[in-house]
Amino acid sequence: MRVYERPVRFEEVDAAGIVFFPRFLSYGHEAMEKLFDDLEGGYVRLIRDRKVGVPAVHVECDFKAPLRYGDVARIETTVEKLGRTSVSFRYAISRASDRLPLASILHVCAVSDLTHLKAIPIPDDVRAALERHKV
Amino acid sequence: MRVYERPVRFEEVDAAGIVFFPRFLSYGHEAMEKLFDDLEGGYVRLIRDRKVGVPAVHVECDFKAPLRYGDVARIETTVEKLGRTSVSFRYAISRASDRLPLASILHVCAVSDLTHLKAIPIPDDVRAALERHKV
Amino acid sequence: MRVYERPVRFEEVDAAGIVFFPRFLSYGHEAMEKLFDDLEGGYVRLIRDRKVGVPAVHVECDFKAPLRYGDVARIETTVEKLGRTSVSFRYAISRASDRLPLASILHVCAVSDLTHLKAIPIPDDVRAALERHKV
Amino acid sequence: MRVYERPVRFEEVDAAGIVFFPRFLSYGHEAMEKLFDDLEGGYVRLIRDRKVGVPAVHVECDFKAPLRYGDVARIETTVEKLGRTSVSFRYAISRASDRLPLASILHVCAVSDLTHLKAIPIPDDVRAALERHKV
Repeated sequence: MRVYERPVRFEEVDAAGIVFFPRFLSYGHEAMEKLFDDLEGGYVRLIRDRKVGVPAVHVECDFKAPLRYGDVARIETTVEKLGRTSVSFRYAISRASDRLPLASILHVCAVSDLTHLKAIPIPDDVRAALERHKV
Repeated sequence: MRVYERPVRFEEVDAAGIVFFPRFLSYGHEAMEKLFDDLEGGYVRLIRDRKVGVPAVHVECDFKAPLRYGDVARIETTVEKLGRTSVSFRYAISRASDRLPLASILHVCAVSDLTHLKAIPIPDDVRAALERHKV
Repeated sequence: MRVYERPVRFEEVDAAGIVFFPRFLSYGHEAMEKLFDDLEGGYVRLIRDRKVGVPAVHVECDFKAPLRYGDVARIETTVEKLGRTSVSFRYAISRASDRLPLASILHVCAVSDLTHLKAIPIPDDVRAALERHKV
Repeated sequence: MRVYERPVRFEEVDAAGIVFFPRFLSYGHEAMEKLFDDLEGGYVRLIRDRKVGVPAVHVECDFKAPLRYGDVARIETTVEKLGRTSVSFRYAISRASDRLPLASILHVCAVSDLTHLKAIPIPDDVRAALERHKV
C-alpha cells in the first residue's frame, strides 16, 4: 500500500462548487504512477522510453462525499489483482484532515505496448514493482 | 436517447498519445447536460438558479478502444433507471466516423439540493424531462 | 475574421466561481484551429500527419470581465501578422448573449517542425489559408 | 522570491506532445498561491472565507522552450509591483533538472471582492504577505 496526498487545485472544482467527479480518476492515476517509483526512471521512463503503459479497460467508482477547494485528497493505493497481462488498482480516497471516506475506485488496466496498443505479458521488473503493493 | 457528438480537443490527450481515460466521463457529463435542454434554461438554470444538481454516487466504465486527437466522439445517452431520488445514465461512446465502440459508462447520480448536498425527490419537471430519454 | 462560439463547460470554472483565466487561452486555441478548416484535413492533419504545428512564443492578454458557467464565449479570430516563420493571432473574446467584451489576446506562434521543434518557413498552403483571415 | 517545483502531469501534454501552453499559466497560479502561505489559512481561506481574490487583468508570457512529460517545472515567483488595488506577479519558469529557461510570465491582478467582482484596496495583512516577495 502506498499513500499519496495532494491538495485540490483551484481550477479542479465545477459549477456545483465541488471537485468534478472525473478528477477523482485523475487523482487515482497520479497515485498509481507513484507505485512505479521503485522502477528505475519510474512511470515516466516506462511510458516514454519503453513504450509500455497501462490503458484502462474497466473502472468502478463509489462516491461517498464531495471534495472541495481547500481540502487535501489522501489516496491509499493497492494492487488488488495481478494477472498475466492485466493489473487492478484500488484507490481508497479520503479527506486528509479527518480521513472522511470520499471514494473507492477499482481501476483495471491492460499492460500494453503503447506503439501498437496491444496487451503484453507484464514485464518482470514491472511485476516485481507491483507485487510490493499487493494486498 | 439523445446523440451528442464532439471532437477530441488538442489538449485532451495524455503522454501515451490517447485521450486520457477520465475525460470519457467528462464527455458523458457534457452529453448528460443535453438531456435537460427541454427544461427551461436547461442544466445551467437547474444548477445555478434552482441549486439542484446530480452528484455522482456510482460509476462503471468499460473501455474497448482508445480515442485520439482528430477523432470525434459520438455519445448516445439514455436514462437507464429513474428512482425517487436517483437517476442512472448510460453513455454508449463510439468513434463518430465509423461507429467503432469505444466505451460504455453507467453513471448513477443522486438528485441533490446543492446548497446542503442532500438527496431530494426528483422535481416533477426534471422527472418529465428525463422520462423522455428512458430506454 | 472567423467567429467561433462555444459554451462554458461545467468544469471550466475555478474556486472563485468564474472561468479560470488560463482557459481563455484554450478557447483562443480552439478558435485558432478553425482557421485551418480550409486546409485539407484541417489542423488535425497538419499536426498529426505533416508534423507541423504552431508552438506559442509570446502571448499578451487583457481581461476586462469574467465569464461564468451558463455563458457562451464568442471568439473572433484574425491573423494580425504573417512573417516568414511566424504568425500572430488576435482573439477578441466577448459574451455571446450581449457582446460584452471579455478579453483580447495576442498569440504569437513559431510555425514549427514538431519532430525537432524548430521554426520553419510557413508552407505555402498554410500561408494561403491564414492570409484569408488577415485584418 | 519563492521557489515552487512540480512535475508535469501525465495529462498535461497536448497532441503535439508538449505541455499545452495555457498550462504554464496554471503552473504560475499554483506558484502564486504559495506566496500566501504566511497568511493564516493561506490562499484558500482568503478565497473561500474572506471572499477576496485576485482575478487577472493582464498577462504577458514569453515562451522559450517546451516542457515535456517527465520534466519538473521550477517556478520562481516574485512580486514585481504592488499598487493600491493591484499586484503584479512574475513567474520565471525553468526545467528543474538543468535550469533551462522555459518561460517568463507577468501576471497583473486586481485584488477584488469576489462577491461583487470589484477591485478593493489590498487588505493590510495581504499586502504584508506580498511585500515579503517583492524584488
